[in-house]
Amino acid sequence: MRRRKIKGADEKLLSYKHYIVNGMIDQKLPEDESNDSKSLFDNRVAVENEIYNTLIDNYRGNWNNIFKNNNPIHIEVGTGRGQFITTLAEQNPNINYIALEIKEEVLLRAVEKADDLKLSNIAFIWGNVEFFDLYFSDKELSRIYINFCDPWPKKRCAKRRLTYSSFLELYRKKLNDNGDINFKTDNKDLFEFSLNEISSNDWMLRNISLDLANSDFKENITTEYEDKFMNLGQAIYRLEAIDIRRK
Amino acid sequence: MRRRKIKGADEKLLSYKHYIVNGMIDQKLPEDESNDSKSLFDNRVAVENEIYNTLIDNYRGNWNNIFKNNNPIHIEVGTGRGQFITTLAEQNPNINYIALEIKEEVLLRAVEKADDLKLSNIAFIWGNVEFFDLYFSDKELSRIYINFCDPWPKKRCAKRRLTYSSFLELYRKKLNDNGDINFKTDNKDLFEFSLNEISSNDWMLRNISLDLANSDFKENITTEYEDKFMNLGQAIYRLEAIDIRRK
Repeated sequence: MRRRKIKGADEKLLSYKHYIVNGMIDQKLPEDESNDSKSLFDNRVAVENEIYNTLIDNYRGNWNNIFKNNNPIHIEVGTGRGQFITTLAEQNPNINYIALEIKEEVLLRAVEKADDLKLSNIAFIWGNVEFFDLYFSDKELSRIYINFCDPWPKKRCAKRRLTYSSFLELYRKKLNDNGDINFKTDNKDLFEFSLNEISSNDWMLRNISLDLANSDFKENITTEYEDKFMNLGQAIYRLEAIDIRRK
Repeated sequence: MRRRKIKGADEKLLSYKHYIVNGMIDQKLPEDESNDSKSLFDNRVAVENEIYNTLIDNYRGNWNNIFKNNNPIHIEVGTGRGQFITTLAEQNPNINYIALEIKEEVLLRAVEKADDLKLSNIAFIWGNVEFFDLYFSDKELSRIYINFCDPWPKKRCAKRRLTYSSFLELYRKKLNDNGDINFKTDNKDLFEFSLNEISSNDWMLRNISLDLANSDFKENITTEYEDKFMNLGQAIYRLEAIDIRRK
């Protein structure tokens, strides 16, 4: 589990109070101080407790109240600089978007984009997909986007891939009966892994594309990273998945 | 529906009586004669009737008797020159193999390979996958191999692709409860089509490979065609599918 300290970009990020939710319950202790210090530890626990309680009390299961409507909620896991999700939010005012990102420096760029566009149908969680269960109640989501996540190429790191079975179970819990997963990557091995992992865990695959630029899927919204790869002529892989246990 | 006449290679092929089953119930009229000729037509109908009745009486539902054992039956649709299926038959004496091929010239090569190897666990059907239902009774098969079939790239020809939904329904009927489909192709578009078509028709995909030569699947048996493509360094795609309605 990664731990990060709140400083610099973090403070600026958290200043966008109408957009940002602090989901970082695993705060890092300041690096130059001792882990043994009782008061530092107590302080961290207190901060984490407060974040935890705020998530449970104000956000988890409460997102439609926050957005002040009953529109479906789509989230992007690992939103990066936010081109993808802010473009979607601008194009689809009747859908609520939540962007989840762990890295404060890039998330700040995403929040700034939303602020420039004065979007009202988007929120940002500075947080970790591992705490998914803390951010959302069961069946609260209609769609989960996963775009160009870390491929974790080593076999012993397979559990960290965002299409690993344990993550799929988490998504299954949080998606409603009509929910789906939309997944894109430029990494062939990760895509192959994902096809197998998703299909073997009771999801139906659909709209699989092995070369998105030359496919029938015309409404593609790109990420910053994707633009770079597409310009190099590299294949982008895409799939959608529906939970067949819900059928 | 393709119609072919019995001549030349055909006669040689049919002379391998212990290996070959004539499943060509759509005989072609001699090209230089008129379709209007009543006697030619009657003659064709008579030949086709005889083939039809022989298939129904002696083969369909009777394959385990023909092989004189209760071993599982694996078939290859479009066996070509037979390197794949004869290699399998040689390696797996406890499995019965049936090779289906419409082109008599290439099927002859396959039969000759089996004859050279003195294989007793293989049979060849000179026939058309469209008559699948005539060759096999329901649940008679344990595995269906489809290797490097015609991609039929034009959209209006999609129905002819051997992974089109109507073929999948035919395979579903003929496979037993533990049966599966094993599919390989070098054609990316056909593979993409097949992933979507198979997944959306209640089959679970497994062991999907987007580059067989660089995959974990070590027991690959190649076809003649595949050897050529692999030597050129081109990607071979592979998948297995299990009927989830049977689960």
